[in-house]
Amino acid sequence: MASSARQAPNRRDEILEAAGAIIARKGVRGLRVEEVAAEARVATSLIYYHFGDRSGLLQAAMERTDEVAPSWELRTPDPTRDAYTRLRDVLLKELGPSAGVKQNVIVWNEMTASAVFDADLQPRVARTTREWTGLIAKQIRAGQKDGTIRSDIDPHDESEIIACLLDGLCSHWLTSSVSRSRARELLATVIRDRLAARAR
Amino acid sequence: MASSARQAPNRRDEILEAAGAIIARKGVRGLRVEEVAAEARVATSLIYYHFGDRSGLLQAAMERTDEVAPSWELRTPDPTRDAYTRLRDVLLKELGPSAGVKQNVIVWNEMTASAVFDADLQPRVARTTREWTGLIAKQIRAGQKDGTIRSDIDPHDESEIIACLLDGLCSHWLTSSVSRSRARELLATVIRDRLAARAR
Repeated sequence: MASSARQAPNRRDEILEAAGAIIARKGVRGLRVEEVAAEARVATSLIYYHFGDRSGLLQAAMERTDEVAPSWELRTPDPTRDAYTRLRDVLLKELGPSAGVKQNVIVWNEMTASAVFDADLQPRVARTTREWTGLIAKQIRAGQKDGTIRSDIDPHDESEIIACLLDGLCSHWLTSSVSRSRARELLATVIRDRLAARAR
Repeated sequence: MASSARQAPNRRDEILEAAGAIIARKGVRGLRVEEVAAEARVATSLIYYHFGDRSGLLQAAMERTDEVAPSWELRTPDPTRDAYTRLRDVLLKELGPSAGVKQNVIVWNEMTASAVFDADLQPRVARTTREWTGLIAKQIRAGQKDGTIRSDIDPHDESEIIACLLDGLCSHWLTSSVSRSRARELLATVIRDRLAARAR
């Protein structure tokens, strides 16, 4: 009993990892349940057992990939850095060099593109976006308190501007319209211009 | 002969219009050639005759929809307005209230999302993006010349920042994370802050 309770979540995790990797390589359009089963070395029936259908698998895989996005670090306070530096560094990590970050960006891009036509997915994407902009706004308020972020700006407006800019930069990066380093440079410029307290 | 020469491009146009409408309703994933044929009231074989295969139809439909994007107005000079006002108004039109604008935004969003996994489509999307940012940069230079746009900014940097922001705003609008009017307000704020000459 104890052993199977440990094993079940692992199998589920392995399936979601395999699905995330396939979405990152081929997109949501390219994902076939049989291929996920082969990649995770499980029976197709186990996937249907855990996720119901292809759509359930897709949503769970996209949500799991999203969980590792660098921005979620902002849920936990970090007293070792000032609020501005921390916010800037966390957001720049969303355009970091690791394969894991790129996989996360691709899957999020697929998730939002799919949500345009998927009434079940759209509220989940909107909720995740609201949580994300909420964390950015909270960090902006922390910076207004510690004096590192301009006091004359609206945290909610700025959080939406920065989130939209970052999503647009990611989309241009993924289609090779800008390089990753160029995207980071443009993001850093806008964060500095819009958020940094004058004294910095 | 004259009649069939007139008729051929019309049929082709009707097919592309039908395909654009279906992409806007259901996405690239949802497009079936048979449904385009039914919507355009032509035989499926005529579609294959004009476009080769589904992928050729998709690309032609997406490119045709893109042709009507408000930003392409910037290809033609307009001496009746100062450069800043014209640039701001053209970019805000990309978030305009008409169904045609929304269809264009959805199709462009689908085109960029598909290009992430489609090696044939990616250079076309990158080329269109470069033409777009090139026109914005040119308009910024015109504004620096007529004194309505800040002289201390780099037109190329600003054009990329604004294009990425606008694409991100569109994606958040399409997934109901921000309203259209909110997206316009945020875009207008950033355009004013980054571009408007101090005297304005």
